[in-house]
Amino acid sequence: MSTPPQATAFPTLRTPRGPVPPGAPRWNPQRGSAMPSHRYRPAHERVEIPAGTARRWPTRRIDRAPLWVPVDLRDGNQALAEPMDPARKRRMFDLMVAMGYKETEVGYPSASRTDFEFVRHLADSGAVPDDVTVVVFTAARADLIETTFASIRGLPRTVVHLYTATAPVWRDVVLGRDRRELRALIEESAVRMARLAERQPGVRFEFSPEVFNLTEPDYVLEVCNGLTRLWDASPDRPVIHNLPATVEIATPNVYADQIEYMHRQLERRDAVILSVHPHNDRGTGVACAELAVLAGAQRVEGCLFGNGERTGNVDLVTLALNLHTQGVDPMLDFSDIDEIRRTVEHCNRLPVPGRHPYVGDLVHTAYSGTHQDAIKKGLDEHARRAAEAGVPAGQAPWAVPYLPIDPADIGRDYEAVIRVNSQSGKGGIGYLLATHHGLDLPAPLRAEFSRTVQRAADASGAEVTAKELWELFEQAYLAPADGPLTVTDWHTAQTAPGAHDFRGVLRRDGRPPVDLHAAGNGPLSALAAALAGAGIAVDILDYAEHATGSGPDSPAVAYARCRTGDAVTWGAGRDTSQLTASVRAVLAAVNRGAGERSQGR
Amino acid sequence: MSTPPQATAFPTLRTPRGPVPPGAPRWNPQRGSAMPSHRYRPAHERVEIPAGTARRWPTRRIDRAPLWVPVDLRDGNQALAEPMDPARKRRMFDLMVAMGYKETEVGYPSASRTDFEFVRHLADSGAVPDDVTVVVFTAARADLIETTFASIRGLPRTVVHLYTATAPVWRDVVLGRDRRELRALIEESAVRMARLAERQPGVRFEFSPEVFNLTEPDYVLEVCNGLTRLWDASPDRPVIHNLPATVEIATPNVYADQIEYMHRQLERRDAVILSVHPHNDRGTGVACAELAVLAGAQRVEGCLFGNGERTGNVDLVTLALNLHTQGVDPMLDFSDIDEIRRTVEHCNRLPVPGRHPYVGDLVHTAYSGTHQDAIKKGLDEHARRAAEAGVPAGQAPWAVPYLPIDPADIGRDYEAVIRVNSQSGKGGIGYLLATHHGLDLPAPLRAEFSRTVQRAADASGAEVTAKELWELFEQAYLAPADGPLTVTDWHTAQTAPGAHDFRGVLRRDGRPPVDLHAAGNGPLSALAAALAGAGIAVDILDYAEHATGSGPDSPAVAYARCRTGDAVTWGAGRDTSQLTASVRAVLAAVNRGAGERSQGR
Repeated sequence: MSTPPQATAFPTLRTPRGPVPPGAPRWNPQRGSAMPSHRYRPAHERVEIPAGTARRWPTRRIDRAPLWVPVDLRDGNQALAEPMDPARKRRMFDLMVAMGYKETEVGYPSASRTDFEFVRHLADSGAVPDDVTVVVFTAARADLIETTFASIRGLPRTVVHLYTATAPVWRDVVLGRDRRELRALIEESAVRMARLAERQPGVRFEFSPEVFNLTEPDYVLEVCNGLTRLWDASPDRPVIHNLPATVEIATPNVYADQIEYMHRQLERRDAVILSVHPHNDRGTGVACAELAVLAGAQRVEGCLFGNGERTGNVDLVTLALNLHTQGVDPMLDFSDIDEIRRTVEHCNRLPVPGRHPYVGDLVHTAYSGTHQDAIKKGLDEHARRAAEAGVPAGQAPWAVPYLPIDPADIGRDYEAVIRVNSQSGKGGIGYLLATHHGLDLPAPLRAEFSRTVQRAADASGAEVTAKELWELFEQAYLAPADGPLTVTDWHTAQTAPGAHDFRGVLRRDGRPPVDLHAAGNGPLSALAAALAGAGIAVDILDYAEHATGSGPDSPAVAYARCRTGDAVTWGAGRDTSQLTASVRAVLAAVNRGAGERSQGR
Repeated sequence: MSTPPQATAFPTLRTPRGPVPPGAPRWNPQRGSAMPSHRYRPAHERVEIPAGTARRWPTRRIDRAPLWVPVDLRDGNQALAEPMDPARKRRMFDLMVAMGYKETEVGYPSASRTDFEFVRHLADSGAVPDDVTVVVFTAARADLIETTFASIRGLPRTVVHLYTATAPVWRDVVLGRDRRELRALIEESAVRMARLAERQPGVRFEFSPEVFNLTEPDYVLEVCNGLTRLWDASPDRPVIHNLPATVEIATPNVYADQIEYMHRQLERRDAVILSVHPHNDRGTGVACAELAVLAGAQRVEGCLFGNGERTGNVDLVTLALNLHTQGVDPMLDFSDIDEIRRTVEHCNRLPVPGRHPYVGDLVHTAYSGTHQDAIKKGLDEHARRAAEAGVPAGQAPWAVPYLPIDPADIGRDYEAVIRVNSQSGKGGIGYLLATHHGLDLPAPLRAEFSRTVQRAADASGAEVTAKELWELFEQAYLAPADGPLTVTDWHTAQTAPGAHDFRGVLRRDGRPPVDLHAAGNGPLSALAAALAGAGIAVDILDYAEHATGSGPDSPAVAYARCRTGDAVTWGAGRDTSQLTASVRAVLAAVNRGAGERSQGR
């Protein structure tokens, strides 16, 4: 089926796109500039599902979790430079049980002694809970099938998973069999499995036409329907037809069409569990799985955090948490995702990348100023609404900008969410000062201070930690209270309702001390009057103060914006006495203003 | 629009899925087993595109590359713990030019001094080729727009990119403006841009309704159409409407619907470049971009190897190479992908993960036996067909199992493709012995040796290098030629046509030397007869020999399968003389057979 003509698609772009003119830099010109794309072609023609009727999957929505089947112990393990030893296999298996997986592929027992012995270990050790089914993988060869059945003896619930590559290139180049011969080989193996299963209770069957997505759809349908009949599948004892995208070959909508074609035409549909097994060669494994579930798939095979051959199997964690963030119960427990990650990293001896969805070190982090500002406002609003509704913040509906999931759902805190560098703005800086040091800067001061931070970050080129942020703030706004101008030995008194008295000693570099004494309608206005009496005119334009914690010993912080001469400056003070903090804030502002004047500004 | 009923969808699964019974291990039970999925809901109701008509994107195929716009220097850079310094920025910019990108977002000059100065550097240094357009990013505020225009003075071709978040949560919680107020703010900024552009030739305009995918589609349409008119867009001077999936919120088909809605309803469609900007929160950024292009997008913003805030921007490399592997020219040069990767890793100070599509260290590697076997057969077939057609292998059509791309297209060799561990089979082992040591083992010997390798790999649990493979082979098959039984001082002669003579001295531990002399129809049959004369009955059942290289000094390797008494064993010999190699192969087989007999087999 070719692309229908589109009247408005792809107007001519006016952006220059011609060849690079002579003299412009070229990438490795001796190798030639163009890629040899002519060597490739679209994998195959489109599936028509079913011929003449409209596809349904684009109109659907996923409203329940499919059956998840991790294949880390088989497909994932086959892709490791150092396959798991028995201790690692057991640790991975226990993790899957603990997370809530009910079906797990545990190995390829006829291909590896380690795998065979691990299946025996599961049979003998009682490691498999009553509600968990174990899957074992086998190729279509008599001796391998016999070995497979020998491995599972004594296990009460198993799936024996038969695979054969079915795509034309594989048939021709690898197997040397035509369609009819290959189907005969598959059915011969299927008959053998059925006979062996008569002596082994609790066995079900799975079939994978490997490289399904490159196989003629009608051939897969013919083979699968043949097995459904041969194994006499029924709703009580369904067969699993698992349709792998062994190597990704097209945009994910093509796979969805292929799955819908099968979903709508498989015989005894209520006796078949339609399963998918996407890989990630084109970076679209998650999308293929999601669209396949829309198209009728009920079971998804994959690996935790996307381990697996080459670019990996589809990532079961991302798929499950994608459902979670849409309000669909993933039927799995991710409440401590970092512990899951540590276990998987230990077993696979491969790191999970920093930007991996949900679990990477960087995925809940925001550096950019606008993002930080929005997140801060969103978190405040979330807390406000939760309090208003009387529910814990961890249970309240979630709608915070830039955070698709509440990190608390997966056992993370907000510490890592906001980090500051030269790309950051006042929102992030304010958030870090608030969470780490209990400071709630007045908005104009936050804006002024963020410029200081940005200059420092621009100069260093590095991230600014919460500690460095505090040091910058202390140096800029708190420290100036200590000089050059200081007031010592001061005390205040309320002499009458609304009347305050300020006394102290003014000290300045190289000048004799001056006694201060004045009155005002509050301690700070009395201080301002006292300073005016010594020849220093100070207007207190703005003032704020708050506690930095909840205990009686937690210091207060005061912020004062003062005009001293021509200069208007902020100062800050911090002390367990709120009065001392406020006096220091004014003195800091005055000294900062004096500093600005002395620099000729 | 709700999900239509599906008669056959989701039959009851018979696989047990109930709660874990008491006593079975649980994941962190104190935290509760279920995830609080009730806190989330599907982001919003479905778009109808346009109401009542069928969507077209699932029927289309991508047949040409969109305009790629890397935003590594802006969006990507904002996500780095350590943003790029000027030298790194320049190196990244030069890389993009060299690869063939024609439009690049270079910074947010009003938000960072580094960015401002870098844009000035580009204007002053002549770093921008004549066919490359520079994009600068700005928020919708008068002073920031002025600064942005100040930064680009003197650059002949620029795009000024205005963004504002438009989604309801952002309007309500972050911006505090309703639909009308926000549109007024955007248009005020747009008017300012148009005025400033009158004094700056070569400026075009881009608008991003940030969080487009969470915004009411009709509101985005209203705002975008308003700007198209206000900026008087024409095919000669098109406006770019860039529709970001700022945070991924749904399966990728939903984004495709949203893009098709816009594509089909934007005014002056031939004067609008429809652009997309996906992120990767749900691991489906690549899919969103691909489906969006099917839906009408003509321009894609993203980052190299998917750097960017949180889980990253969409990966432009994967998108481009996905087109390449479908026969569509990506319009970019990836002929040395490892050099591109080294540069990007240097600039971002972040590693590219091992399983990242196309470029990761592991993505062209196969460990599993069946994969290795199929790849080996596929590579042989590829070489054969190329030779038959008389074209270089690097230009011949590509269809090798499990390898979606010829690694040579991106500057890689096959060395890394096949690696051996306990999961590997005879195909991979044969391939490694052939490529590294020039050995072409007869099929039955390859099968026998692969079991030896697998035992060794199972025991060590580690990968087996080509060197270790060679050592295993030498120890098992070559070394036995040196004892306990040896033949020294031997020579052969052709005594008549078809008649050969063998003489030598047989030496065995603790026995006196025995003179050998016999005739046969070839040197080896004469050797066998001579050994028989000394009481050692040897049948040579199978024999093969080949050179291991092309020069006159390259050693030959011989393989002999012999029956000695009850034992049937393979032996091998290696020597610059093919005759010596064959004699050693027979002696090795005899000694191995003697070893098996002495072990009572």
